[in-house]
Amino acid sequence: MTAAPDDVSLLAPGWTGSAVAAATGDRAFVRALLDAEAALARAQETLGLAPRGAGAAVTAAADGDGFDARSLAERARAGGNPVIPLVADLTKAVGAEYGPYVHRGATSQDIMDTAAMLVAVRGLGLLLGDLDRVQRALAALAARHRDTAMPGRTLTQHAVPTTFGLKAAGWRSLVLDARDRVTAVRDALPAQLGGAAGTLAAFGAYGAADPTALPAAYARELGLRAPLLPWHTLRTPIADLAACLAHVTGALGKTATDVLTLARTEIGELAEDGGGGSSAMPHKANPVRATLIAAAARRAPQLAATLYGSLVAEDERPAGAWHAEWEPLRELLRLAGGAARDAVALTEGLRVDTAAMRAHLDDTHGLIVSERLSAELSAVLGRARARELLTRLARRAGAEGRPLGELLAAEPELAGVDLDDLTDPARYTGSAGILTDRALERR
Amino acid sequence: MTAAPDDVSLLAPGWTGSAVAAATGDRAFVRALLDAEAALARAQETLGLAPRGAGAAVTAAADGDGFDARSLAERARAGGNPVIPLVADLTKAVGAEYGPYVHRGATSQDIMDTAAMLVAVRGLGLLLGDLDRVQRALAALAARHRDTAMPGRTLTQHAVPTTFGLKAAGWRSLVLDARDRVTAVRDALPAQLGGAAGTLAAFGAYGAADPTALPAAYARELGLRAPLLPWHTLRTPIADLAACLAHVTGALGKTATDVLTLARTEIGELAEDGGGGSSAMPHKANPVRATLIAAAARRAPQLAATLYGSLVAEDERPAGAWHAEWEPLRELLRLAGGAARDAVALTEGLRVDTAAMRAHLDDTHGLIVSERLSAELSAVLGRARARELLTRLARRAGAEGRPLGELLAAEPELAGVDLDDLTDPARYTGSAGILTDRALERR
Amino acid sequence: MTAAPDDVSLLAPGWTGSAVAAATGDRAFVRALLDAEAALARAQETLGLAPRGAGAAVTAAADGDGFDARSLAERARAGGNPVIPLVADLTKAVGAEYGPYVHRGATSQDIMDTAAMLVAVRGLGLLLGDLDRVQRALAALAARHRDTAMPGRTLTQHAVPTTFGLKAAGWRSLVLDARDRVTAVRDALPAQLGGAAGTLAAFGAYGAADPTALPAAYARELGLRAPLLPWHTLRTPIADLAACLAHVTGALGKTATDVLTLARTEIGELAEDGGGGSSAMPHKANPVRATLIAAAARRAPQLAATLYGSLVAEDERPAGAWHAEWEPLRELLRLAGGAARDAVALTEGLRVDTAAMRAHLDDTHGLIVSERLSAELSAVLGRARARELLTRLARRAGAEGRPLGELLAAEPELAGVDLDDLTDPARYTGSAGILTDRALERR
Amino acid sequence: MTAAPDDVSLLAPGWTGSAVAAATGDRAFVRALLDAEAALARAQETLGLAPRGAGAAVTAAADGDGFDARSLAERARAGGNPVIPLVADLTKAVGAEYGPYVHRGATSQDIMDTAAMLVAVRGLGLLLGDLDRVQRALAALAARHRDTAMPGRTLTQHAVPTTFGLKAAGWRSLVLDARDRVTAVRDALPAQLGGAAGTLAAFGAYGAADPTALPAAYARELGLRAPLLPWHTLRTPIADLAACLAHVTGALGKTATDVLTLARTEIGELAEDGGGGSSAMPHKANPVRATLIAAAARRAPQLAATLYGSLVAEDERPAGAWHAEWEPLRELLRLAGGAARDAVALTEGLRVDTAAMRAHLDDTHGLIVSERLSAELSAVLGRARARELLTRLARRAGAEGRPLGELLAAEPELAGVDLDDLTDPARYTGSAGILTDRALERR
Repeated sequence: MTAAPDDVSLLAPGWTGSAVAAATGDRAFVRALLDAEAALARAQETLGLAPRGAGAAVTAAADGDGFDARSLAERARAGGNPVIPLVADLTKAVGAEYGPYVHRGATSQDIMDTAAMLVAVRGLGLLLGDLDRVQRALAALAARHRDTAMPGRTLTQHAVPTTFGLKAAGWRSLVLDARDRVTAVRDALPAQLGGAAGTLAAFGAYGAADPTALPAAYARELGLRAPLLPWHTLRTPIADLAACLAHVTGALGKTATDVLTLARTEIGELAEDGGGGSSAMPHKANPVRATLIAAAARRAPQLAATLYGSLVAEDERPAGAWHAEWEPLRELLRLAGGAARDAVALTEGLRVDTAAMRAHLDDTHGLIVSERLSAELSAVLGRARARELLTRLARRAGAEGRPLGELLAAEPELAGVDLDDLTDPARYTGSAGILTDRALERR
Repeated sequence: MTAAPDDVSLLAPGWTGSAVAAATGDRAFVRALLDAEAALARAQETLGLAPRGAGAAVTAAADGDGFDARSLAERARAGGNPVIPLVADLTKAVGAEYGPYVHRGATSQDIMDTAAMLVAVRGLGLLLGDLDRVQRALAALAARHRDTAMPGRTLTQHAVPTTFGLKAAGWRSLVLDARDRVTAVRDALPAQLGGAAGTLAAFGAYGAADPTALPAAYARELGLRAPLLPWHTLRTPIADLAACLAHVTGALGKTATDVLTLARTEIGELAEDGGGGSSAMPHKANPVRATLIAAAARRAPQLAATLYGSLVAEDERPAGAWHAEWEPLRELLRLAGGAARDAVALTEGLRVDTAAMRAHLDDTHGLIVSERLSAELSAVLGRARARELLTRLARRAGAEGRPLGELLAAEPELAGVDLDDLTDPARYTGSAGILTDRALERR
Repeated sequence: MTAAPDDVSLLAPGWTGSAVAAATGDRAFVRALLDAEAALARAQETLGLAPRGAGAAVTAAADGDGFDARSLAERARAGGNPVIPLVADLTKAVGAEYGPYVHRGATSQDIMDTAAMLVAVRGLGLLLGDLDRVQRALAALAARHRDTAMPGRTLTQHAVPTTFGLKAAGWRSLVLDARDRVTAVRDALPAQLGGAAGTLAAFGAYGAADPTALPAAYARELGLRAPLLPWHTLRTPIADLAACLAHVTGALGKTATDVLTLARTEIGELAEDGGGGSSAMPHKANPVRATLIAAAARRAPQLAATLYGSLVAEDERPAGAWHAEWEPLRELLRLAGGAARDAVALTEGLRVDTAAMRAHLDDTHGLIVSERLSAELSAVLGRARARELLTRLARRAGAEGRPLGELLAAEPELAGVDLDDLTDPARYTGSAGILTDRALERR
Repeated sequence: MTAAPDDVSLLAPGWTGSAVAAATGDRAFVRALLDAEAALARAQETLGLAPRGAGAAVTAAADGDGFDARSLAERARAGGNPVIPLVADLTKAVGAEYGPYVHRGATSQDIMDTAAMLVAVRGLGLLLGDLDRVQRALAALAARHRDTAMPGRTLTQHAVPTTFGLKAAGWRSLVLDARDRVTAVRDALPAQLGGAAGTLAAFGAYGAADPTALPAAYARELGLRAPLLPWHTLRTPIADLAACLAHVTGALGKTATDVLTLARTEIGELAEDGGGGSSAMPHKANPVRATLIAAAARRAPQLAATLYGSLVAEDERPAGAWHAEWEPLRELLRLAGGAARDAVALTEGLRVDTAAMRAHLDDTHGLIVSERLSAELSAVLGRARARELLTRLARRAGAEGRPLGELLAAEPELAGVDLDDLTDPARYTGSAGILTDRALERR
């Protein structure tokens, strides 16, 4: 009963098996922790703080696969983080000669934070790859459906027509916003190195002429940004990650919620390619990809809130705020990564029923163009008369289920008006096409 | 890169290895899913909806250990939940004769929700065991330190004296509040059974005379409460779990934050038994148990918020709200379970430095009893004179670092007053003792 | 630029003008603060801690309307809460004789917490009144539509039939869950009285023989529960309020989200009575009440999370956790109160289009009863043959847009089967009626 | 009972009376709504969509002060937002000739979103002013205390020395991070203009040759950025505001939590200038400014979560997600603005007790430099011997309360070592000075 659980993501169909899931697993974290220790040893050797060979020796030992994540997890209980047992295991693996140079001068948080940044950089790279596929799929949809008219819906009701192209261009725009934020955050993630209280003092005690050169060398080894200051309790990188990842799930969640709406049985304008089945009803084709994305989008903001809360980190290392970051950060990476993976499938395979879109434009018997009629008939009949006429005929159209255009055509005073044009919803899509073109210019 | 991750709770020193962690692992969930299917078959047999022997056959197959959680997780992707592949595996394991009675008439959510309730009941039982140990440890501390005076602190500043007994009794009171809420919620958790849209219709189609008898029979098999209605989108049980679990982490978080404060190097009134070490500073004894509890308490409210958000579940099964529950609910169980486990160690091993408490009562040079002096000297000197005198002497006490009592003793007009009594902080603990006694009467 | 803002709830159409809004306004809080001070004076007089007449004098002064909420707000800046200036104003209003008995022995938090409880009790009473109207309206809908068949929808797709009666009964069930939780919480809300650090010490210094009798007397004066312990940093009442209020908005949010779905232009099964207009499209009837309820339900969980976070309150009065409660608690009361007010209008005026419900049952060309056919034809044809036949015909039904029943009727082997019954969705509502009846028995 | 409440921020000592509070009040919102309408009229005139004079006429009417926020709030109930009644009032005020050009072609959300952006820009400007004062105060503190040694604290325990200069430089660094994010967000906030469903169609119906020119002209009038697309349901600006405002409160919360810790009675290294009083204890000087900032920091992340949740906005205007933004966005602006105002007072008036800092360096009897001793004595004695000696003497130092340096001095083998230097905590601040200098170069 007290064995560590073997979680295999049974409760996580949203991210199980995704590339980001693997890149953020416990083995990936152990790898990143070891990468950080190895880089530290190499950087110290470079600056003369460790003897020649120490960097290579630690790196070679760290590259081994004898590190047991489960054992580290258990032994992490005592000190509250897995770095302490990891350093013991690595030191032993390195051996007597260079062992003393493992982790020398560093603090657990240096390694833990750096590993989190490495995992984040790797995960975000995979995420960005999927976001790019999504935006390309959406660009193709927007271009293809530039002029596909459909009902614009506000507060659940048909308002005026729009196009599916503009809708897809909007989805893409939001995805690009997310992508831009992720890219900027990823490119700024810093290595962490400060020693026990962020003063780099131990490196001096071990003989460094200028300890402040060390973080930069260490960061270079890792491909991370050099920090301006140790950021043990200055958690901007964590907050930035929270923001951009919540942006990703929110942006994809917007697409998902629209797909879920438009895939409803009564609407049927969109469908997932190969929807998921049901254990009870063999005929059903559920929008499972959109459902899982929507589920991720419901969770991410609260995880981001926890990470923003960790900005309030007392002293030189906080008693709780830091520890509260680890799982939520990983969970956010996974939710965003899983959502992006599902969004690729969703958008690349999306089925668009343009006939259904066209048909729904008539659901309101022509009222969907009442805005236009109100504007254009005012020019013909005067504002008051136009309003009176429209109000009366709109009521009749609704009550009798007859097209408003037909009722208008029976009005003598409108004899010369091109009602076919005026009442065709597909000709009242405004600037949707131009806006779509313009949005697609964004790269 | 695309293999499911093998998470071994490396990032979770707060709950790794705890009993609740094991009881909420993926294998435990698979077990609970199988228990639910087996109970359904037995209940159907009882009501004549399945032939004699079907219940036993399904139960026997479900008790097997050939179910591969990882494979289920992977195959859960298609339909969005693991029940669909599980039903396929179980049906195969049961064999041709009784296989058709597996899951008959049910929907995935019936099994998934029921399994979640089973896991919750089991996890909460373990949690309650630990909460009971915590409350007993706190009761012992409160009784032992009923009259141990210490500074009462408000807005970080010494205010008036209190006792450690009252403080521990308060911690216990909050733990009992949490325990009572957990117990009430646990005892009310219902089984789920409604079929595809919650009407129990399929059971009728398969021949049940009164399908509404089935949920009760099923619940009895499982030791859960019979639901009044299928609750696929009436998520009170989930919200109630969220509330009581957030209460647990908050209650334990209160104790932890006080321990963290009182264990500060400058205060040192409390210490953990065998604090955790540091990778950089061998001398440190960190309050690791309190730190991990505090970390859990920072996370739980946001997880609870996600679960409360799932009350807004559209239709007869929502596209996202339900799926968004699974991981947060488990995470909350684990955070609360891990915090309770750590709280056992924390409270059973807490070291109390009564001398430090006593010494700190003098930190303000007697100002900690200024409230009492103000009250009692007014009776002797009149309100205005008392205030004037106290204000002047308090300023001197602070400036000169001399005890206020000493300065008061030099005032001739106070010659007859028992200043030793009046200025002894340990004699100004008010009703702390009686309040402690009263609080300890609560069971 | 530095004047206090005159907020008139411009951004809050969800709760502006509601009874709960008025009961939770700043003037209502000032009233409650004064009520608490007056009750304290009366209780002290009762126990002999204040001279005869003090209670009446303070009560009379507190009943005055010369207290300027704006001025109190400004002066609250210095000490961080409005009680300090209020005590000054009240003392002055009481005058020289009894002024010294105002607030004597109490701390600001005693008054502030007690006032919050008074405001909560008053607000919850109003809320419960509206919830009762809602549950009655839903009971009437459930009874009236006990047998009104409509599509059951899962993951946005038609699944099997249900009834609107069962749906309304489910809504009501959730509202009753919320009501029961609100009632239990309201009836348990305690007064707060502990003095500076929760020891009641000052009351002893002022001469009380048994200061622990005072909180009970004070609570009696206020109609609140007597606290077992001062709860300055034992915040169960706040957490309980958070939970029950989030339950209310979630429960009402469930109804709202269903109404929003079913009111969609394409679905049109439900409509609000007198939907809201649009500034751009005169024909629109927006489901504004449901929209505002849905908005409240999106916000409440996060406000509740903040309040749960306040359980972690250090020392005898925390530096921040307490102050962070005030606005979120009020906001939650208002959101829940406003949502309940809107839910009254929504449910009492809900328009149900039973014809639309009936018509949509045919949207899937009979597939909505495929579960039943699968069960019942297996008995006739054998499981394998039934499945083969249904799969083939279901595909044809979808492709050709012809009713499944019609295709089945052409199959010779089903000659003796009552296909009219089997394929009528309205006859496949399972136990919906009985479940509805049973749910309506709950009071 | 049903009157709109007159909230005067009684419960908000954190932001009452601040410049941002006034700039975000209901009157400021009405002003911004009117500014948006006026700008729209002027832009339409510029593009020939309204007759000459219309812009000036609408602007003149909008500049009037006859608009009653309370009445607008009440009338906002019907349609769910205050723009509908505002347009009615403004049209009337403009009069018959130009009235028809008020709001022509726009939708409520165009005006509401634009007003929110105007209010945000104005509020952020004030906020940035205060953040600049804070960072300057912190820069001065960092420079002045560049070499002021104090204990570095990790997990509540003394670790190794640091300097107050580095701590203040860290605070400033976080404030600059927040400032940079706020500035970037503010400079990118777009106007909103799309018409009923974001297609700009009505402007075409009213005769615009190129309706897509209108949003840019409108944005120019308002000093906002022109949107690439209408963003009615593409809520990046809202998410970005949420992120940067949560960053502000978190960054200031970091400073506040450190001040609260270091101002504790037992620590006393920092004090607020003129702390707040207490209703019960006249001697107390509470860190009220830090308390109120800490309270804001506890609330902001959850408000930000709600705003991130609004990214999931269905259709062309969502039924709830949009309405759920208004109050949380304002509340975040106020919390951040109030926290910044308090942070000015806190940091400009912060009292630093360097003697207390120096004294606390000896609290651990020299163990605070054990890291250094371990490093440097290893070079003298060998690693094993050094560790053995230090472990033994450290234990004695703690047990006997004697300085570690004194015990070391008695060891013959250390005769030649400059123990005065090695054991002086003030000489073990590592690179704190250089890091401080470097951090101060950031502007």
